[in-house]
Amino acid sequence: MENNPIKVAVSGAGGRMGKEVVKMVLADPELQLVAAIDAREAQDAGILAGAEPCGVAVQTDLELALMESGAQVLVDFTTPQAVMNNITTAIRAGVRPVVGTTGFAPEDIEALDKLCRDKGIGGIIAPNFSIGAILMMKFAAMASKYMPDVEIIEYHGDQKLDAPSGTAVKTAELISEVRKEHKQGNPNEHETIEGSRGGYYNGFRIHSVRLPGVFAQQEVIFGGHGQTLKIRHDSYERAGYMPGVNVAVKKVLDLTGIVYGFEHFID
Amino acid sequence: MENNPIKVAVSGAGGRMGKEVVKMVLADPELQLVAAIDAREAQDAGILAGAEPCGVAVQTDLELALMESGAQVLVDFTTPQAVMNNITTAIRAGVRPVVGTTGFAPEDIEALDKLCRDKGIGGIIAPNFSIGAILMMKFAAMASKYMPDVEIIEYHGDQKLDAPSGTAVKTAELISEVRKEHKQGNPNEHETIEGSRGGYYNGFRIHSVRLPGVFAQQEVIFGGHGQTLKIRHDSYERAGYMPGVNVAVKKVLDLTGIVYGFEHFID
Amino acid sequence: MENNPIKVAVSGAGGRMGKEVVKMVLADPELQLVAAIDAREAQDAGILAGAEPCGVAVQTDLELALMESGAQVLVDFTTPQAVMNNITTAIRAGVRPVVGTTGFAPEDIEALDKLCRDKGIGGIIAPNFSIGAILMMKFAAMASKYMPDVEIIEYHGDQKLDAPSGTAVKTAELISEVRKEHKQGNPNEHETIEGSRGGYYNGFRIHSVRLPGVFAQQEVIFGGHGQTLKIRHDSYERAGYMPGVNVAVKKVLDLTGIVYGFEHFID
Amino acid sequence: MENNPIKVAVSGAGGRMGKEVVKMVLADPELQLVAAIDAREAQDAGILAGAEPCGVAVQTDLELALMESGAQVLVDFTTPQAVMNNITTAIRAGVRPVVGTTGFAPEDIEALDKLCRDKGIGGIIAPNFSIGAILMMKFAAMASKYMPDVEIIEYHGDQKLDAPSGTAVKTAELISEVRKEHKQGNPNEHETIEGSRGGYYNGFRIHSVRLPGVFAQQEVIFGGHGQTLKIRHDSYERAGYMPGVNVAVKKVLDLTGIVYGFEHFID
Repeated sequence: MENNPIKVAVSGAGGRMGKEVVKMVLADPELQLVAAIDAREAQDAGILAGAEPCGVAVQTDLELALMESGAQVLVDFTTPQAVMNNITTAIRAGVRPVVGTTGFAPEDIEALDKLCRDKGIGGIIAPNFSIGAILMMKFAAMASKYMPDVEIIEYHGDQKLDAPSGTAVKTAELISEVRKEHKQGNPNEHETIEGSRGGYYNGFRIHSVRLPGVFAQQEVIFGGHGQTLKIRHDSYERAGYMPGVNVAVKKVLDLTGIVYGFEHFID
Repeated sequence: MENNPIKVAVSGAGGRMGKEVVKMVLADPELQLVAAIDAREAQDAGILAGAEPCGVAVQTDLELALMESGAQVLVDFTTPQAVMNNITTAIRAGVRPVVGTTGFAPEDIEALDKLCRDKGIGGIIAPNFSIGAILMMKFAAMASKYMPDVEIIEYHGDQKLDAPSGTAVKTAELISEVRKEHKQGNPNEHETIEGSRGGYYNGFRIHSVRLPGVFAQQEVIFGGHGQTLKIRHDSYERAGYMPGVNVAVKKVLDLTGIVYGFEHFID
Repeated sequence: MENNPIKVAVSGAGGRMGKEVVKMVLADPELQLVAAIDAREAQDAGILAGAEPCGVAVQTDLELALMESGAQVLVDFTTPQAVMNNITTAIRAGVRPVVGTTGFAPEDIEALDKLCRDKGIGGIIAPNFSIGAILMMKFAAMASKYMPDVEIIEYHGDQKLDAPSGTAVKTAELISEVRKEHKQGNPNEHETIEGSRGGYYNGFRIHSVRLPGVFAQQEVIFGGHGQTLKIRHDSYERAGYMPGVNVAVKKVLDLTGIVYGFEHFID
Repeated sequence: MENNPIKVAVSGAGGRMGKEVVKMVLADPELQLVAAIDAREAQDAGILAGAEPCGVAVQTDLELALMESGAQVLVDFTTPQAVMNNITTAIRAGVRPVVGTTGFAPEDIEALDKLCRDKGIGGIIAPNFSIGAILMMKFAAMASKYMPDVEIIEYHGDQKLDAPSGTAVKTAELISEVRKEHKQGNPNEHETIEGSRGGYYNGFRIHSVRLPGVFAQQEVIFGGHGQTLKIRHDSYERAGYMPGVNVAVKKVLDLTGIVYGFEHFID
C-alpha cells in the first residue's frame, strides 16, 4: 500500500448502497473521501450516511466535484439511467470508475473500455461485489463438471417482484457452460400441483422462495451416488458488498481498460 | 410390558418394507415372529430379510398362517390391491392389524373400524410411521398459527414420478387448517422462468427437488420480521419407519377400533 | 381491539432495542407513543429512533413522564441496574410494565407480582420476545420426548463474549425437563482435539460457533433410526423482537400479576 | 474407452466396502470381475456381495488369484495390517493397485512408488474416494483465502470413537495452508460450559456432532461482512465412494508411479 490514502468520490452518496460506500471509505485509513455526489439536499456526507460528520458536503454537480476534489476513483451506485453519463464524465476527467450500478449493454462496456484505454486508466464494473456470492457461483460451476445433477434454490424477501433472481440465473448460466447437458429426473415425472418442480433451465431446475425476514440467500445442491454437495450463500445486509468494493477501489489503480465482473479478481 | 412376547405375523415379508419389519421383530425380545406371508418362494423369513435364519418359513396363505401361528398382531406392508383383503382376513381371525400400506378410501377405514369393534379388537393404519416426519408436520402446523408466511421444500430421489410428495401435500393441508389464509408475496410478482415460484397451494408455495443420492427430506420455512424458522426432516432409509411400527405393535393391543394416522400416538 | 389506541411509554428509548420499540409503536395505529424516557439529551423521540419526527420529546424523569402522559403501558429495555426501579415506579403509578431487560432474580419477580396484584394490574417480563425463538425452544422440548438423542448448535457474531448463548442454555434446560436422561454417544469416545465434542450438558452436547456476519442462529438436531429432525431459528436483526413486544403490549391490559416468559402466550 | 473390459480383482471382497466394489464392477460393462479375494469362506462373489451370482468364486490366496485371473487392477479395501503385503504382492505381479485402505506412513507410499516405477506401472492410494467430499475440501481451502474466518462442523453416527473425524482434520490442514493465520473471535471470550467453543486448530474451531441416524456429513462455514458462505457434504452410504473408485480403476492404467489422494484427479 502507498503512503498517501486513495482519494475517493462517491456518486449516489445518499442512496442505500451509496451510504454504505461512504461509511466504508470513512472507516478505512487507506482511503480518503474527497467528494460525495447526490441529487438530494446538500449536507455533510457522513451525517447523510448515518455516521459521524466528515467535513465533506454533498454536491450535485459531478463534473465540478471530481475536478475540485482531485479524486482518483469514483464509486458509483446510482441508476441505469444516470450511470453511463456519470462514468463517461469520470473517465474524461481521468477518474477511475468502480461501478455497482446494473443495466449495461455489451456495447456500453465496449465503449467505456475504449474510453479508458484512450485515457490510459482502468475501471471496474460489477453487478455483484459480494465475495461470498462470487465464490458460490464459481464453486457451483466447478462442481457441476463432476456432479452434473443439480438444482438451485434461491430465497429473497416476499416483496421482490421477479423470479428467479439475477444471481440464480447467472449461476445457472455458469453451470450450463460446464455441465454435460442432460435432462434430469424421471422422464415420466408429472406435477399434481403445477409449478412444484420449479423453473426449467437447460435440463435442471430453479426454485424461488419468497418470505418476509429474508434478505438474499441461495443454495446450489448437487446429488450423486449416496451423497449430496451443497454450496450456500446467505447475505444479510447491503454492507456485505463493501469488502468487495474496497478491494476494487485499490485494484483499479493498477488496471488499464474496463474489467467487467468482480469474479476476475478471485482465482 | 408383559412377560410373554407379542406374537407377530408379517404380510409382504419379502417386500422392501416387509424385510425391515421382519428384522425389527427379530431384534426385539418383546416381540416374537410367528408367521411371514409373501407370494414369493417359501424359504426362511430371516434369510429372506437379509438377517440370520429364524426358523419361520415364508408362507403364501395368509388365513392359514394366522390360524396356525396364533398371531396377535399382523403387520402389513403390501399393496393397495391386496391390503383390504389381508386386513379383513386378519380382523375376522381376531388378529390386530398394523398397516403401513397406502390407498384407503374413508369408507374403507369406516368399514374396518366397524369390523374391529364387532370383534372387540383394535387396529392401526398409518401412511407414515416416521416419528420425525410426524413431529415435523405437527410443528409446522403449530408454527403457522404464529408465523403465517411459509413455504415447503421437499427433496426426493430423481426417479420419483410425482411432485409434490404425499408428505408435502399432507403438511400443506395441516398448515392450511391453522394458518390465517392469505396470498403471500408481492401481488405484482412475475416469473421470468415459468414455475420458478413453485406450486401454489392455498396462498403459499411448495417446491419439489429431485436429485440422485437423496432418499426423502423436507423443510418447512417460516419467515417473519427479521427472522426465519425452519423445521427439517431428513429420512435416510426405510429402517426409519421401524421405531414407529414397533410402538404401534405394542399400542394396538390396548385399542378398540381403528386409529388412522400415527400422529394420534404423539402428544 | 378498542377504539382508542393504547397509550405507550418507552424507557431506554435511545438504546438499540428502545429505538426499535419507538419505531414499532409509531407504526401501529392501535398504539400511541405518549412518552419516551432516556438519560440521553432531550430531542424528538422519532428522530432519535431514526424515524420521522413524532412530537414526543425524550424526557429523563420516568415518574414525571408517566404521570404527565397518562401512559397505560411502559415498555422497558434498559439495564439490569435500572430496571427494578423503573418497573416499581411504573406499577406504583398504575402503569403496566412490558419488560425485555434481563437480570431478574426469582424473588424480584415475586415482589413485582405482589405489587401488581395489589394494584390490580398486569405485567409481562420476558428475556426473549422472539416468537420464532420461543417456538424453536418449545418444539425442541416436545421432540426430545420422542427422539432423545439431541445436540444443540448455536451461532453468534465473533465478538460475543460468552459461550454457550443464553438461548442455548435455556433450550438445554427445557429439553432436560422432558428428555429421558442418558449419556449419548460411544462410552469410549475420545477427542484427539480437546473440546471438539462440544460442551457437556446433562448427557448431551452444545456447540457454539462464532463468526463475523452472523447475528443469532440456533439449530437443535435430533437423531434416530435412519433419520434426523432439525429445528432452526435464524435471527437477522433486533427488529425480530418487535412483533412479540407488540403482542405483549396488547395482552398486558387483560392480565393481573406478572407473567414471566413470552412462551406463556404461545399454545 | 477400449473395446475389452478392464480385468479387475477385488481384495477384501467380503468386507463392507469390498461388497460395494464387487457390485460396482459387476454393474459396469467396461469392467470385468476376474477375481475376488477374502479370508472368509469360498462362495460366489456376487452372492457374497448381495447381488446375482457372477461365476467368480471367492479365493483366499491373493498371489495365486492374481496370477490365474490375469487381473490388470486390484482394488483393495482391507485393513492397515494386510494392505502393505497385498499391494506389494500385486505390484510384483504387475497388477495396478487402487487402494482405499487407510494407515500408510509417508515412507510406505515412497517405497510403493519406487516399486511401481521399477515395474513401469501406476497405482492410486486414497483415504477418500468421495468426489463430493473432495470438492468440499477443495472449495473450503479456496474460500479461506478470501474469507479467513471459518469454522468446521462435522456429523457422524453416535458410535464413532474419535473426534474430530479424519475428513475434518484433513479439511483443517488444507485450510491452514491457505488461510492467513489469525486467532478468530473475541480475545476475552470465555466458556461457561467447557468445550462449547469446540476444538481449537490453528486459530479456528472444529465441532463434532454425534447422533444416531447420521452416516457422515460435514459443513464448513465462512463468515464475513453481512454474509456467510457454507459448503456442505452429506454422505448417506458407502456406495458414495464407488463413482470415485470407478474413475480410479480406469485412470490407473495410464499412470506410472503412485498417486496419493483422489483430489489429484479433480481440477
